[in-house]
Amino acid sequence: MTTSTIQNLMKQMTLHEKIAQLLQLASPFFKGSTEQGHITGPMAAMPISDEHIEHAGSVLGVAGAAEVISIQKTHLENNRLGIPLLFMADIIHGYKTIFPVPLAIACSWDPELAQKSAEIAAKEASVSGVHVTFAPMVDLVRDPRWGRVMESTGEDSYLNQVFARAFVRGFQGQDLANDLQSVAACVKHFAAYGAAEAGRDYNTVDLSERQLREFYLPGYKAALDEGCEMVMTAFNTVDGIPASGNEKLMRSLLREEWGFDGILISDWGAVKELIPHGVAEDDKEAALKAIKAGVDIEMMTACYVQHLAQLIAEGEIKETIIDEAVLRILTLKEKLGLFEKPYRGADVELEQQVVGHQDHLQVSRELATKSCVLLKNDHHTLPLNSNKKIALIGPFADSGDILGPWSALGVKEEAVTLKQAFEKHLPIEQLNIVTGCHVETISSQQLEEAMQAASNADVIVVAVGEDSDMSGEAGCRTNIQLPAPQLELLKALATCGKPMITILFNGRPLDLHGVLEHSDAVLEAWYPGSEGGSAIVDLLYGIKNPSGKLTMSFPDNVGQVPVYYNHFNTGRPQGAPDAQERYVSQYLDAPNEPLFPFGFGLSYTQLSYSDLELTSTQLTKDTDITATVTVSNVGNVTGEEIVQFYIQDLVGEVVRPLKELKSFQRISLKPGETKQVTFTITEQQLRYHHADLSFKSDKGSFVLYAGTNSKDVLSHSFQLISGRN
Amino acid sequence: MTTSTIQNLMKQMTLHEKIAQLLQLASPFFKGSTEQGHITGPMAAMPISDEHIEHAGSVLGVAGAAEVISIQKTHLENNRLGIPLLFMADIIHGYKTIFPVPLAIACSWDPELAQKSAEIAAKEASVSGVHVTFAPMVDLVRDPRWGRVMESTGEDSYLNQVFARAFVRGFQGQDLANDLQSVAACVKHFAAYGAAEAGRDYNTVDLSERQLREFYLPGYKAALDEGCEMVMTAFNTVDGIPASGNEKLMRSLLREEWGFDGILISDWGAVKELIPHGVAEDDKEAALKAIKAGVDIEMMTACYVQHLAQLIAEGEIKETIIDEAVLRILTLKEKLGLFEKPYRGADVELEQQVVGHQDHLQVSRELATKSCVLLKNDHHTLPLNSNKKIALIGPFADSGDILGPWSALGVKEEAVTLKQAFEKHLPIEQLNIVTGCHVETISSQQLEEAMQAASNADVIVVAVGEDSDMSGEAGCRTNIQLPAPQLELLKALATCGKPMITILFNGRPLDLHGVLEHSDAVLEAWYPGSEGGSAIVDLLYGIKNPSGKLTMSFPDNVGQVPVYYNHFNTGRPQGAPDAQERYVSQYLDAPNEPLFPFGFGLSYTQLSYSDLELTSTQLTKDTDITATVTVSNVGNVTGEEIVQFYIQDLVGEVVRPLKELKSFQRISLKPGETKQVTFTITEQQLRYHHADLSFKSDKGSFVLYAGTNSKDVLSHSFQLISGRN
Repeated sequence: MTTSTIQNLMKQMTLHEKIAQLLQLASPFFKGSTEQGHITGPMAAMPISDEHIEHAGSVLGVAGAAEVISIQKTHLENNRLGIPLLFMADIIHGYKTIFPVPLAIACSWDPELAQKSAEIAAKEASVSGVHVTFAPMVDLVRDPRWGRVMESTGEDSYLNQVFARAFVRGFQGQDLANDLQSVAACVKHFAAYGAAEAGRDYNTVDLSERQLREFYLPGYKAALDEGCEMVMTAFNTVDGIPASGNEKLMRSLLREEWGFDGILISDWGAVKELIPHGVAEDDKEAALKAIKAGVDIEMMTACYVQHLAQLIAEGEIKETIIDEAVLRILTLKEKLGLFEKPYRGADVELEQQVVGHQDHLQVSRELATKSCVLLKNDHHTLPLNSNKKIALIGPFADSGDILGPWSALGVKEEAVTLKQAFEKHLPIEQLNIVTGCHVETISSQQLEEAMQAASNADVIVVAVGEDSDMSGEAGCRTNIQLPAPQLELLKALATCGKPMITILFNGRPLDLHGVLEHSDAVLEAWYPGSEGGSAIVDLLYGIKNPSGKLTMSFPDNVGQVPVYYNHFNTGRPQGAPDAQERYVSQYLDAPNEPLFPFGFGLSYTQLSYSDLELTSTQLTKDTDITATVTVSNVGNVTGEEIVQFYIQDLVGEVVRPLKELKSFQRISLKPGETKQVTFTITEQQLRYHHADLSFKSDKGSFVLYAGTNSKDVLSHSFQLISGRN
Repeated sequence: MTTSTIQNLMKQMTLHEKIAQLLQLASPFFKGSTEQGHITGPMAAMPISDEHIEHAGSVLGVAGAAEVISIQKTHLENNRLGIPLLFMADIIHGYKTIFPVPLAIACSWDPELAQKSAEIAAKEASVSGVHVTFAPMVDLVRDPRWGRVMESTGEDSYLNQVFARAFVRGFQGQDLANDLQSVAACVKHFAAYGAAEAGRDYNTVDLSERQLREFYLPGYKAALDEGCEMVMTAFNTVDGIPASGNEKLMRSLLREEWGFDGILISDWGAVKELIPHGVAEDDKEAALKAIKAGVDIEMMTACYVQHLAQLIAEGEIKETIIDEAVLRILTLKEKLGLFEKPYRGADVELEQQVVGHQDHLQVSRELATKSCVLLKNDHHTLPLNSNKKIALIGPFADSGDILGPWSALGVKEEAVTLKQAFEKHLPIEQLNIVTGCHVETISSQQLEEAMQAASNADVIVVAVGEDSDMSGEAGCRTNIQLPAPQLELLKALATCGKPMITILFNGRPLDLHGVLEHSDAVLEAWYPGSEGGSAIVDLLYGIKNPSGKLTMSFPDNVGQVPVYYNHFNTGRPQGAPDAQERYVSQYLDAPNEPLFPFGFGLSYTQLSYSDLELTSTQLTKDTDITATVTVSNVGNVTGEEIVQFYIQDLVGEVVRPLKELKSFQRISLKPGETKQVTFTITEQQLRYHHADLSFKSDKGSFVLYAGTNSKDVLSHSFQLISGRN
């Protein structure tokens, strides 16, 4: 079907049929759905008629070939013009094969593997009938109180861009017509959803346009540059106006300035939420503001189907605005091949073979291995010797709640727990497993059992963390320590005097006081996904060497939030040579620095950085500089290292970050091996938003940093001889 | 001296003499100063010559008639043209007679008394030779981690304006020529210094221009509208550029848009701090950026005197920009009468009589009484019966550290402590006073003594808090609870089972978990000033009835920060009728609401609000509405009440606060007495910054609230029939 045939189709559509294309409903509304008839709560109250459903443009939340085929079949029978439904779903970090949560994936600093995870998710989802996934989320995050940081790739704009591109490539593949290997991607949440005030989900966002453009927007833009088909609105305000009704953001910036011509979809209920936000008086005004802003699909509220026709009749909007939205929706259906193959990849038999395939699990295991971050390892406590008797203790010792929020069709009961993985590795007599405490409670009996187990073992492995519903959407906490009963367990176990290794399962950076001081080694495992236990045991026994690095700073305590590596110097920086004792930018009771900085992560081997050299110290707009740093493995085992390059602009028209990540490389080094890692510095990398928001570079002095994390770096100065627009 | 004579004087001045007028140095630089010759540390490193000092325009930090006269005398002998020095100082909440800290003063909601405190400060300061005070600070604050909240009047823009005007009126009086009753005021810190990220002093500020204009700027503007002579720059960035080098903020907004033609002074060292901020390469560029931005006086760095002449020679700036600055400085000197009377009010004999006068202390006591906020009073624990045996326990039981930061010439040893005040009120045998603990330490002996004292008493009064250097400039904390030893003391004392009253001395809203649950009554005394002990004892024994109300919310815990009453609703507010259980804007582990809301404060009597009535429910641009609420004293004692009126704009072009304070009235009610309190609603009160930042009202629905605090209110709807620009 060509554009002209779509236009022919549109000519046959009534206004009501067109408007219904802009409606997205959850699966329970559709005949053929297994959930059909179970519409309860707010859904039941929606003013949705059978006719709306018959003409609706898309469905969300359906997963499974049989159900998709059934719903689509019924739909095509009832839809006058036979326009197929688009099926969308939240495939965030895997469909059935669950990968680590996105924040963990980012800690792998391995965009190729991240892409592979999205390819697998797309493969499993497409044979199950899904056409569009509501991913990637590329919201920049600086506040660990916000539960949804687990769904982001962290605090750095450059990394967000790298992963945004990798995920889009993975989901969409080479061609959306490839109905067994691709789903359309929908980048979210446009814009700045991650900057919710006080880390409380859905809360007000207030930023200068400068911050928005410099740090928050590049992730979304990168996804679109990679061809991402859709954009989802954010729940929050941007400059005082909720994103879903924000004409400046959506029409002027997204559509006109960036030239985005794909589908803009509201987040769940966000069109109608213009009312509680206080910028629309009723559903009708909400519909008006959202359509004018450029929202094509209204998800799960009925403002459009109830009011758009009347708004046209009243001359408030032109019918062409509806036509444009419908055209975008039909165009995506056409790109996906739905007019020819309305069931697209959905295939009940193939689904059985593809979904959860062993090869997929293998990739999940590899990614989990690379995502774990070793935060502490005193006295070479890790890796473990397989001769040792292990006491495996804690609420996550045998928990399948390691898939994390947004696990789509992942089944906790099928996840490989630590217990299962240990039992594969060790003779049963070397292993003693007790719960110790629950996530939020502890009994004296549990504690006693734990102490008993610990005292009979050579090494204590404690598996602690947050229930997966303690993060994720609306999973916000003001206390970012482990729940008190788990801290009590750790403190008690530490009195046994045995080597103690703590494994953390959680969806946000934590304040680790109460954990670090009692543990000889600490491994941040995040929510590692389907193969989590196996991946961790591989790391604990040195079968694999930890290589993950944090992409979000771990605060010293919640009172220090937000803390992030690429902050500004201020006029009174701590530690300056002429700083006064008191009158510097600092706290009386805590450091300025996080507990663990961005880019931090240990290895079982030791790496040495030397000889940061530049081909020239003078950069021009036409001549790049090549920087080379020498990295040696001076330890005893093979290790992978993420070599990080940062740049600092010493003087700007506006204040500039102390460091900005500009490049990184994952390398593998055998013991004694040395590699030279290069990075090409270009004038483009030095551009920033000036006082008037123009994006350009200035000539002047810069510093290049290379190192193993954002703090421990070598440095070398260079000059930009000629800046440019 | 007229403007033309000033211009004649300027014609005689060399360029270097002019530039030196822009220099402000601390007193140790000046001959005649008692501190002269003691220049150490960073001061000693300043490239300041004798010639610079001889021609300098102003001094800061001098106080005392003798010293001022001596320095001025020497200066006039050496200054070629006999141009007198301007003497400036930080007279923040009193000169020698110390009033409660400004945050406490605000809690009085008594602008007349606040004005009187500034009048007294001006009187004491002017006879001591001070010409300008670096006050009022009107920075809007929402983050209790920031130590300087104590110097602000709180989180509300309207109250900030009210107090800004009151303080300016108080300091400047009717006429600056009145050399015994007035000092010039310098409003600070322009702009938005109170929005330091993560509550860390001097840290980056990032706000939308919308937030800046709607909430942060009105306080400064009000001070200028009241005739405030000077403005001080903020240390922070505003939209990426440090205020002291920010042309848009200072030239375009402050000078051009607002028409301010007084002196703009940098904060201490802030011109040179453009270098660590990273917007100036060296002192010369710092000087260039600051003078172009419009900074007239450079405080305590030497960029101007070192480089302005050369910048003119190089054509980077015109000499007229210097002339304009000098003209402003000389004009203020002329307004203050310095050309005729270079010593102005400075009078060694009068100083003895005026400074610290008993009448002044009486006003301080009255203001302290009104500033204390009764947070809890279960079982009518307060007021105390004078027959009871009291155990007065805690680090503030006999501490003079109750003046608070920025106490100018206040002497802690002269402050009336709680002990002294109790001893005046009670026979000695009814009073047992022990320390219990220090502010940050506790010994078992101290605890034992405290328990002993408590068990022998009828009532326990515990005086706890923060050392005054735990707040104030650079006094930032990530933990906003009382120090742990004091919490330990409270917990132990509570086990005695005696009625327990806790008095708090502190400079910020605190997380009061660990205090509230152990106390039957809690009185927030802030730093109450010279007469603190007396004022508190007056309240404890019911000689006065508490009437203070919070002007800054007390958070539930630091993980909830920022929390403030005039927030937006969000699209998913907590408690909405159709709210889902999880997917609302909330924390899993803490309420959204603060522990104590804005406007909160108890009384010994009971007040009843009823009959909120409007003369009309339809407002037009030409016809106001008068609202009346009936307030009755249904308790047993006379009380003062602060009746608060708030308005909510239900639908805006941009999101609007849930409530905004628009008016308040302090009334006194005898037992059984009823008063009707009125408030005139006008169209002007409904204006706000629209999407394009235009400031106007819209027609539509509004709600008026009247009540005893921002939470407990009566409400009444009304309509604005016609909005306007």
